[in-house]
Amino acid sequence: MPAAGAALAVAAGGPGTAGVRAVLGLDVGGTKIAAGVVDRSGDVRSFVVEPTRAGGARGEDLERLFELGRRAVAEAGLALDGLAGVGIGCGGPLDATRGVVSPAHLPEWREVPLVALAEKAYKKPVELDNDATAAAAGEHRVGAGVGTSDMVYLTISTGVGGGVVVGGRLHRGATGNAGELGHITVDWRGRECRGCGRRGCLEAYASGTSIVERAREADLEVASATDVAAAAGRGDATARAVWDETVEALAAGVTSIVNAFEPEVVVLGGGVTRAGEHLFAPVFERVHAEAMTEAGRAVRIVPAALGERVGVVGAAAIVFEREAAAHA
Amino acid sequence: MPAAGAALAVAAGGPGTAGVRAVLGLDVGGTKIAAGVVDRSGDVRSFVVEPTRAGGARGEDLERLFELGRRAVAEAGLALDGLAGVGIGCGGPLDATRGVVSPAHLPEWREVPLVALAEKAYKKPVELDNDATAAAAGEHRVGAGVGTSDMVYLTISTGVGGGVVVGGRLHRGATGNAGELGHITVDWRGRECRGCGRRGCLEAYASGTSIVERAREADLEVASATDVAAAAGRGDATARAVWDETVEALAAGVTSIVNAFEPEVVVLGGGVTRAGEHLFAPVFERVHAEAMTEAGRAVRIVPAALGERVGVVGAAAIVFEREAAAHA
Repeated sequence: MPAAGAALAVAAGGPGTAGVRAVLGLDVGGTKIAAGVVDRSGDVRSFVVEPTRAGGARGEDLERLFELGRRAVAEAGLALDGLAGVGIGCGGPLDATRGVVSPAHLPEWREVPLVALAEKAYKKPVELDNDATAAAAGEHRVGAGVGTSDMVYLTISTGVGGGVVVGGRLHRGATGNAGELGHITVDWRGRECRGCGRRGCLEAYASGTSIVERAREADLEVASATDVAAAAGRGDATARAVWDETVEALAAGVTSIVNAFEPEVVVLGGGVTRAGEHLFAPVFERVHAEAMTEAGRAVRIVPAALGERVGVVGAAAIVFEREAAAHA
Repeated sequence: MPAAGAALAVAAGGPGTAGVRAVLGLDVGGTKIAAGVVDRSGDVRSFVVEPTRAGGARGEDLERLFELGRRAVAEAGLALDGLAGVGIGCGGPLDATRGVVSPAHLPEWREVPLVALAEKAYKKPVELDNDATAAAAGEHRVGAGVGTSDMVYLTISTGVGGGVVVGGRLHRGATGNAGELGHITVDWRGRECRGCGRRGCLEAYASGTSIVERAREADLEVASATDVAAAAGRGDATARAVWDETVEALAAGVTSIVNAFEPEVVVLGGGVTRAGEHLFAPVFERVHAEAMTEAGRAVRIVPAALGERVGVVGAAAIVFEREAAAHA
């Protein structure tokens, strides 16, 4: 990461800019909410995080989120006036056009006009995207996908989410819900998907939740997907079978993605990718063997670069991206 | 289709245009080659078609294709000088950047520099795309996808191909091979795919070839996919099982497409769609039930509008599309 001084010089350089053009990024996740102030160069000037409080009254949760944002602004040594805008990445489904969210992971939030409420709270323009789409924007702008025209980002965590960059721009789809790559089919008569209820989604095999669940069904005592990968690596046959099935399903999903989008790069992030080479090596090998020849040759499969801050960096990135699109 | 006079008035209206700005479209398919002159409005001024001659020497086939194009130009009452350009849709794989094709359905064409050869033959600028991508451009410009920003086209014929429009523009991918939607997974441990060799592709269940093959494996005497659909409609239990599996696989594939792209419309074309409501009604029902809620709500699933001329109209459309992009 560049030194703060260098980042500031870049950040302050825009035309018509008074002071630092930093953005507040808010990340509304299923297990945590996070806020941070991010420079144009991707430098994170402050970062605060709290566990998501499930079941609270809707108003309280929102106020807690907005307060977390104010804390991030203060910790960055700024006032709200110093912000160029606010970006929010939120779990889907949502309607990006209307700025309304109904995240699956927060059942008490239904049709919440998040953009209007955040604009009222911060007196700044607010941009909203699906959290995985925002993360894709972050990886594309300052992470593992820098400089690519066509990129797919896949986050493999509790669930599986995705974001897509086509021709250098985020692909949002008809209502902002494109890139639900956890819910592409790998086996239409297969395992039930906890995320959407139908059978055989990628998420029903490759998510951390499913990996642990399938390991326990096979009588393994494990706490996480990484445990399963490690046991498989040590030669445990049962863990090996679960892990192999995971890798096969993930490779089948990524092959579909590669054949459909022909991206230059597929970026894999999320907790399950901590399995490292246990995951990347066999998935890479299978996708290259199974994808259509040209697309398989063209694609790289790489780990995400932004770690736990991808949510806020991504949320900020959607503001910078829309600004750039408006000036294009 | 508008009368020729109206089409000409539109076609002649561009800035800096001398005479009619018509385009020669060439469609290089597995069973037929076709050529036609197409106006800016999509009006087909001439259309000629011949069966693909398999196994011929590469030079002979190319000369036959180029001669077919010259015939189409003559039948339209034009000279080559009257053309704005030439568009070619060709079966993949290909490298659109280098203008080189190696179509799977023409094993004797390997690394053929089709664009350079056509430019030499016609003395006109030549554009090349995958045939299904070109067809998608045609349906988007003057067919079932007119006016949409995000559209997916799927042709279900001998094989299954696809083309994708994102943000009003064709999505070509890293080397022009995006949209290979016949090779998205529906069952990764499933049936072998004749098109690409791996298991469980959409094409391995939904293509006309697979439908007939699976029907015959079940001891049905059928000549085409439409026969299977008709027998299923008459209540034949064996045909019904084959058709139901086809519909389930197709719906699983379209659900993946809808969740990944969130298009406004999915256009289904190709011979298998002659099954009509036997196909559209149950696929529509399943996709709406199984896709993520917002994307499922947003999408329409409609039949292609351009019929057997989609190939040449599409090949012409890629020329008009690139021209528009260059002026944007």
